[in-house]
Amino acid sequence: MSVPKFKELERAYGFDEVAIVPGDVTVNPDQTNIEFKIRDITFPIPIVAAAMDAVVDPDFAILFNKAGGLPILNCDGIQVRYENPRATLDEIINAPAREVTALMQKIYSEPVKDHLVVKRIKHIKKAGGVCAVSFIPATTKKLAHIAEEAGADIIVVQTTVTTARHVSKSYSGLSFSDLCQQLRIPVMVGNAVTYSAALELMRTGIDGLLVGIGPGAACTTREVLGVGVPQVTATIDCAAARDNYFKESGRYVSIITDGGIRIGSDMCKAFVSGADAVVFGSILTRAQEAPGQGYHWGMSQPSATLPRGTRIKTETRGPLEKLLFGPSHVTDGTENYVGALRNAMGLCGALSIREFQKVKMVIAPSIKTEGKHFQSLQQSC
Amino acid sequence: MSVPKFKELERAYGFDEVAIVPGDVTVNPDQTNIEFKIRDITFPIPIVAAAMDAVVDPDFAILFNKAGGLPILNCDGIQVRYENPRATLDEIINAPAREVTALMQKIYSEPVKDHLVVKRIKHIKKAGGVCAVSFIPATTKKLAHIAEEAGADIIVVQTTVTTARHVSKSYSGLSFSDLCQQLRIPVMVGNAVTYSAALELMRTGIDGLLVGIGPGAACTTREVLGVGVPQVTATIDCAAARDNYFKESGRYVSIITDGGIRIGSDMCKAFVSGADAVVFGSILTRAQEAPGQGYHWGMSQPSATLPRGTRIKTETRGPLEKLLFGPSHVTDGTENYVGALRNAMGLCGALSIREFQKVKMVIAPSIKTEGKHFQSLQQSC
Amino acid sequence: MSVPKFKELERAYGFDEVAIVPGDVTVNPDQTNIEFKIRDITFPIPIVAAAMDAVVDPDFAILFNKAGGLPILNCDGIQVRYENPRATLDEIINAPAREVTALMQKIYSEPVKDHLVVKRIKHIKKAGGVCAVSFIPATTKKLAHIAEEAGADIIVVQTTVTTARHVSKSYSGLSFSDLCQQLRIPVMVGNAVTYSAALELMRTGIDGLLVGIGPGAACTTREVLGVGVPQVTATIDCAAARDNYFKESGRYVSIITDGGIRIGSDMCKAFVSGADAVVFGSILTRAQEAPGQGYHWGMSQPSATLPRGTRIKTETRGPLEKLLFGPSHVTDGTENYVGALRNAMGLCGALSIREFQKVKMVIAPSIKTEGKHFQSLQQSC
Amino acid sequence: MSVPKFKELERAYGFDEVAIVPGDVTVNPDQTNIEFKIRDITFPIPIVAAAMDAVVDPDFAILFNKAGGLPILNCDGIQVRYENPRATLDEIINAPAREVTALMQKIYSEPVKDHLVVKRIKHIKKAGGVCAVSFIPATTKKLAHIAEEAGADIIVVQTTVTTARHVSKSYSGLSFSDLCQQLRIPVMVGNAVTYSAALELMRTGIDGLLVGIGPGAACTTREVLGVGVPQVTATIDCAAARDNYFKESGRYVSIITDGGIRIGSDMCKAFVSGADAVVFGSILTRAQEAPGQGYHWGMSQPSATLPRGTRIKTETRGPLEKLLFGPSHVTDGTENYVGALRNAMGLCGALSIREFQKVKMVIAPSIKTEGKHFQSLQQSC
Repeated sequence: MSVPKFKELERAYGFDEVAIVPGDVTVNPDQTNIEFKIRDITFPIPIVAAAMDAVVDPDFAILFNKAGGLPILNCDGIQVRYENPRATLDEIINAPAREVTALMQKIYSEPVKDHLVVKRIKHIKKAGGVCAVSFIPATTKKLAHIAEEAGADIIVVQTTVTTARHVSKSYSGLSFSDLCQQLRIPVMVGNAVTYSAALELMRTGIDGLLVGIGPGAACTTREVLGVGVPQVTATIDCAAARDNYFKESGRYVSIITDGGIRIGSDMCKAFVSGADAVVFGSILTRAQEAPGQGYHWGMSQPSATLPRGTRIKTETRGPLEKLLFGPSHVTDGTENYVGALRNAMGLCGALSIREFQKVKMVIAPSIKTEGKHFQSLQQSC
Repeated sequence: MSVPKFKELERAYGFDEVAIVPGDVTVNPDQTNIEFKIRDITFPIPIVAAAMDAVVDPDFAILFNKAGGLPILNCDGIQVRYENPRATLDEIINAPAREVTALMQKIYSEPVKDHLVVKRIKHIKKAGGVCAVSFIPATTKKLAHIAEEAGADIIVVQTTVTTARHVSKSYSGLSFSDLCQQLRIPVMVGNAVTYSAALELMRTGIDGLLVGIGPGAACTTREVLGVGVPQVTATIDCAAARDNYFKESGRYVSIITDGGIRIGSDMCKAFVSGADAVVFGSILTRAQEAPGQGYHWGMSQPSATLPRGTRIKTETRGPLEKLLFGPSHVTDGTENYVGALRNAMGLCGALSIREFQKVKMVIAPSIKTEGKHFQSLQQSC
Repeated sequence: MSVPKFKELERAYGFDEVAIVPGDVTVNPDQTNIEFKIRDITFPIPIVAAAMDAVVDPDFAILFNKAGGLPILNCDGIQVRYENPRATLDEIINAPAREVTALMQKIYSEPVKDHLVVKRIKHIKKAGGVCAVSFIPATTKKLAHIAEEAGADIIVVQTTVTTARHVSKSYSGLSFSDLCQQLRIPVMVGNAVTYSAALELMRTGIDGLLVGIGPGAACTTREVLGVGVPQVTATIDCAAARDNYFKESGRYVSIITDGGIRIGSDMCKAFVSGADAVVFGSILTRAQEAPGQGYHWGMSQPSATLPRGTRIKTETRGPLEKLLFGPSHVTDGTENYVGALRNAMGLCGALSIREFQKVKMVIAPSIKTEGKHFQSLQQSC
Repeated sequence: MSVPKFKELERAYGFDEVAIVPGDVTVNPDQTNIEFKIRDITFPIPIVAAAMDAVVDPDFAILFNKAGGLPILNCDGIQVRYENPRATLDEIINAPAREVTALMQKIYSEPVKDHLVVKRIKHIKKAGGVCAVSFIPATTKKLAHIAEEAGADIIVVQTTVTTARHVSKSYSGLSFSDLCQQLRIPVMVGNAVTYSAALELMRTGIDGLLVGIGPGAACTTREVLGVGVPQVTATIDCAAARDNYFKESGRYVSIITDGGIRIGSDMCKAFVSGADAVVFGSILTRAQEAPGQGYHWGMSQPSATLPRGTRIKTETRGPLEKLLFGPSHVTDGTENYVGALRNAMGLCGALSIREFQKVKMVIAPSIKTEGKHFQSLQQSC
């Protein structure tokens, strides 16, 4: 007897499960173009600094801008809740491990102040360059216009799962269509992981989509709620929505893979999965200029009753410049990310990110030999 | 040459191998309805406390009832074999590890006393609320009627594998059809894992089905006998039986996923697999009010010749209230299970358990990064 | 472009990757019949003691016979090379780990003596019961007839891979057809793992087939040569050959899964894969009566230039009787194997081994939770 | 709604995921022929010594030649950059772990000297036998002719990914067609992993193709860039290109699996995947005659800005002779590789490498039992 199916399960893939297939043509890395665009703003490198308190403060935003990337300031975090954010950041960094979650719940219960949003934006804009700020949906209506007035160049609306339709009794839902029409500046939204949710969000008029819910093993959303889709599949599906939406509308909405990227290969696989840019979170806390000072914590704001991210130690490595552009003296993919991207594109014959998105990928689990016999390094590395 | 097939093998999935896909609509967690029903008895939260001696004693049953769930008292266990069960429980808790299996075999060889069954039921009923009691098939005929007389509201018949047809020389088989007709109160039966066995049991007139044989890695039935089906597949198949039986009969038999649930995500995945409720065993031994006092053991009664469950340490965490409803200050999914359920439903746009059952799920192994580089927590958690 | 395929790869499965699905009917374990036959010789329990020097010596053969199983004496080993085998066995057991392989290579270079073959057989036959002896193909022609004369009841011809056709310059190949015709007693042959090789061997007139090449992780044939097929698939394919050969000839050739069985569940899965009996090797070295005295080594005779099995410690557990029939006071599947078999058959509603072979099995990797949170033992074990 | 696919992912396999299926006929190992050819040069054993500084120096090349294999001298390495290479090799061997990558970057920045290329070739040729030398594409035009003049028998052009078409502004691309026409001696090229890239390279007139990009777990190209294809699939696809190119042209271009081989089984699986020969790198650094003296490092020359191979300890084992031909006294597949190859061929009934390539293989992950219970060695090993 064949059993009637209550539910079908499809396979989804993460970074550790795939490998990029080299091309029939190779190009020199220095000939690759890795530009990335949000509407008409062009960034020389396709890397976004995460809207998290351990990653981006106004000074880091200025520095990251100069390096060519797009930093996002978390306008639900410490920078806009406290006049002197450094003291609060240090409190989190120095707290004992078993008290840190409760401490963070307390710290993030301090209200967001409008004038601090304005102050942080003006600080960034004074240095020139692009200023992007992020809000949660509940505060966006009020703060997005204030931010635009203050000079912000891009508005990011971000929460764990963001959809074009939200049902709530407690506050009237945010309409992305209205928001996009009312603001003159581009709007980025996240996060989403499916074709249908991505397509629906694109149709509201947004300019960029952050992709990623519960990717990787460390994100506790997968542990606490079980909700999430691994990043390779999530990016592939949202890239399909982008291309189909482009066919239907002529508008190209950038797909930004957000979460789960640790090493150079993860980043490269995100692009081959279809990303136009990638978000670096933990990676950037290793820069000596990062506010986290070698620590990172996982939420723009922790839930008071069900927190899903904790503080981790990431270790300071050196200047941002070296982290992004090398030269590297390590062989584990944790330095010179831009060099890694250009080299991988070269091996695949991709002259642009758009060409790199079309490269072939195979399912190839990274089997660990676990120190058995000896490690097998080969000449063709 | 193509090899003739002696046997085809289909793939079955467990909690660690799947992830829930968020929806195109999201809802606020406080708008979700998580009620669960056995015939006409409604429980505010869809959680069943396992009929195991370390989990439920009469006082815990009263407490769990008040919290909104359904506790089941093990009427093959210590509570109905000993006048003073606390002393016996302490004996098990304090025994040295290598002696505990033999000790349990001895303790559970003491006969079940009818008057203790009556006494425990009356104790629970005096506090108000619902009283559910469980028996093994061999004692059900005699004790179910006594229990009903004493005031029990639900009868549970439970053994490793329960089928509508059992072949035995030593005792005349229990007829579930007869039992369901003779009793006025609802009957729950378990455990089953397949579509056909579930359907056949539903047709006998039962009101609830416990699903799960050998789930998870710790259940030694999988080690000792090799018998079992992982919980996601087992629940999916039994939910198909429920829906088809509902179509054929108009009667809705609740499916309760029983076994293998450790953290919030496991519980959520059980519902998305099709469960109407879930059983908590080990989880509840972490409540300070649980009889196991931070210990748990795996059988309603251990076999004298081939035991398949042993004592484990689970650690006391705090009051039951906090375990179920938070607030949580940990980020690993081991507190505020009800909050986790409502949050996951919200991310998937499910207003009821019935809607949550219809949410999409993907196969997505939880790959461990094993402390390599750093843990990747991302802002979108 | 679709790539032309140089080779297709099919998936093969081992014990750790499957689980047995319980039935729609259950039976009491005491009603199961677990008999096993080689031609007209019936064994009450379907377990074969491996033809290995750490497992079977003449006294153990007598004991195992009385227990109901089929022991095979290794007639290429120490028992037939040395007058006083105990001294030589002790030499191996007491050798330092890094010298033991070289020592075994030396010990097994001593020639086999015909008169010792006769002596060992007569010793076993004096106690009554069945005497089975094993040879490698190169010595079979000469020794099989001597063994039959001495009273042996079953001849076993065994080497890593045995085929009906062997190409060699150094000795004229053994013809199984000739052997089966010349001997009055049954012939068992091994090892094979494929449908075609099994079918071809059956057509030579053999009465039993040992199935297994390189199963499990510890067999170093998989490491040294890469050759082997996991046991579930190997047994399934050879069982298909058995059933098809039975249809074509009316002769039933028993399939005996040989290798990779560690715990009760492995054994049960072998039967559900189609086995008529199973071989116990390492398991039996845990009996206090075994010649290996808590040690085991992996070859009937080690290669002088490319050894593929080494000595391991297995730990003495108690009498053979308890190992096979219990009562067990452990919960890990390493005692009361016969009880485990009968219980698993009961849960699947199988009254005979032949019915148990037809039970459903699913692919269900045994995911380890690795001490995370707590172990999840559930009441339905 | 069915999601439009942005990208399809096919499964690729590595050595640890497959097993070789034994044949219906077996042959004696001493009857196997394992010859390997590059154009009209025949090698008694199908093993290539990697063009890496820790593996091949001129004296090792002479020794390896005598053993029957094909050694390749790395003409981008220390031997042709330094008059006294031993001192430089010792510097790498003795450097502290955290400084060794930077040190190697410095050492390999010393320019290659033409006269040293000539000197090393003449040293090898004086001893008789075959001299093969490797260059990177950028230096090939200039040095290949010098090498041919000096007496080299085979030219190898090797880099991480080599294609018939390379796009570069900085130097005019190497034309393999031109090179193959201009040189009288055979040309080997690498590395490639796909059907199409392999076919295109073969059509330029090359005589051998090295297959492997990022195989195995230790190659950091997979970590740093994410680029690579596991060796079983890479070899299968390139072997398809070889056979199809042979049909179209009548020319047989040898496929040499390069990278990821650690133990005998890996080597055997490479041949069954379609290889005509295999490269040994780390394995040979265990020979007491190897220049690496028990150390190995992974690049012909490390990148100054993005290194992707590091120094590892491999342990000296004994003379090359024993490593290749035994006798072995270990059981883990790390000695007597030639014996292992002949034995595996014997079990599969393959009289030649060409026949061995046609043997069946299955997907059969090497599941580790992790010291649980006991290791299961069985008699049929």
